[in-house]
Amino acid sequence: MSVITLERKVLEKNDEVAQQNRALFQERGIFVLNLVSSPGSGKTSILERTIEHLAGSVRIGVIEGDVQTDLDAQRIARFNIPVVQLVTNGSCHLDAKLVQDALQHFDLNSIELLIIENVGNLVCPANYDLGEALKVVVVSVTEGDDKPLKYPAMFRNASILIINKIDLLPYVNCSIELLRSNALKINPQLEIFETSCTTNAGIPEWCAWIRRHLKS
Amino acid sequence: MSVITLERKVLEKNDEVAQQNRALFQERGIFVLNLVSSPGSGKTSILERTIEHLAGSVRIGVIEGDVQTDLDAQRIARFNIPVVQLVTNGSCHLDAKLVQDALQHFDLNSIELLIIENVGNLVCPANYDLGEALKVVVVSVTEGDDKPLKYPAMFRNASILIINKIDLLPYVNCSIELLRSNALKINPQLEIFETSCTTNAGIPEWCAWIRRHLKS
Repeated sequence: MSVITLERKVLEKNDEVAQQNRALFQERGIFVLNLVSSPGSGKTSILERTIEHLAGSVRIGVIEGDVQTDLDAQRIARFNIPVVQLVTNGSCHLDAKLVQDALQHFDLNSIELLIIENVGNLVCPANYDLGEALKVVVVSVTEGDDKPLKYPAMFRNASILIINKIDLLPYVNCSIELLRSNALKINPQLEIFETSCTTNAGIPEWCAWIRRHLKS
Repeated sequence: MSVITLERKVLEKNDEVAQQNRALFQERGIFVLNLVSSPGSGKTSILERTIEHLAGSVRIGVIEGDVQTDLDAQRIARFNIPVVQLVTNGSCHLDAKLVQDALQHFDLNSIELLIIENVGNLVCPANYDLGEALKVVVVSVTEGDDKPLKYPAMFRNASILIINKIDLLPYVNCSIELLRSNALKINPQLEIFETSCTTNAGIPEWCAWIRRHLKS
């Protein structure tokens, strides 16, 4: 069926550009994370807490991906770090070419950590390599403990799982043990952090992990 | 660019099948809702509360759409109503042909309300007409009040907005007034319900609205 063939061509072309991005990041010693989740899981809030914790000692850049608006880039720009907003205009994921274009707007010598916040979508971004070192999938406890089973590709392709909004656990019908075991059933290699952007719980541990992975 | 052309062909074909579905629903007097949202906004819980409220007096059928698993169909089957699970196997939305295939498994003479729960995705399902009477978009207060601005297509194409999990309002950083006004900025025609599947708040009003729209 022609759709599948074309989709494969699109993905092959994407993988080619992703490899170019990856080679550039390695050459410049930049550690790159691709942050993915459903809309509203707290990607931007995690970014804000991460920047607060690391800024001053780590040189951070951010690429914001959204279907519409630059609301997220505005939130990040308050921290006076380089940020580029990519507006996909209806498209449901970032791709490697969009990221490549965004890189033109950075001074790559002044960055050692680049965090790419993808479009809020737990399905489509799973298939698009951006050239990142690894994918970080965020799920909030308000979404329920069954999400890894229902959206397995994203959890299979990620290296890190951040379970966010744990301050809301007393008020929602979600077992964090079941969420963890469902995620590990899909991907036994997942490294898991539990965070709250309201209480700051887990943010120091997550930032310590980032720090250990910086190349410089 | 060839992708866009093919995508247009796919959408044209989809619209054709959607019209066949719509004609069938009208002929049989079935009121059909297409329930869309992010993963974890509470579509299945709203369905459960709706069935509890209407079963006995309204003849309901359900089509469950998921990327993987039949967990949601299992939840609905407990109510002893006809339910068909569609597993998209990685695809990010239902389409009209999948729904047409699912209809073979129903006795259409015994249904007056068909609720289709789409794949959890606030982007892609916006473009795929299934033949429904109208789209119902669900957003939970835990996702934040900016979602209509960031994912406008879904809110533009929906007729109803259900703001869910209002019992969590005291614990999250979300203004329900701002959420409402952002949604109405995108689509001034939206009819809005506020619900909690934990306290049952808003469910009687939502079900009364459904009852008024049944054809029989």
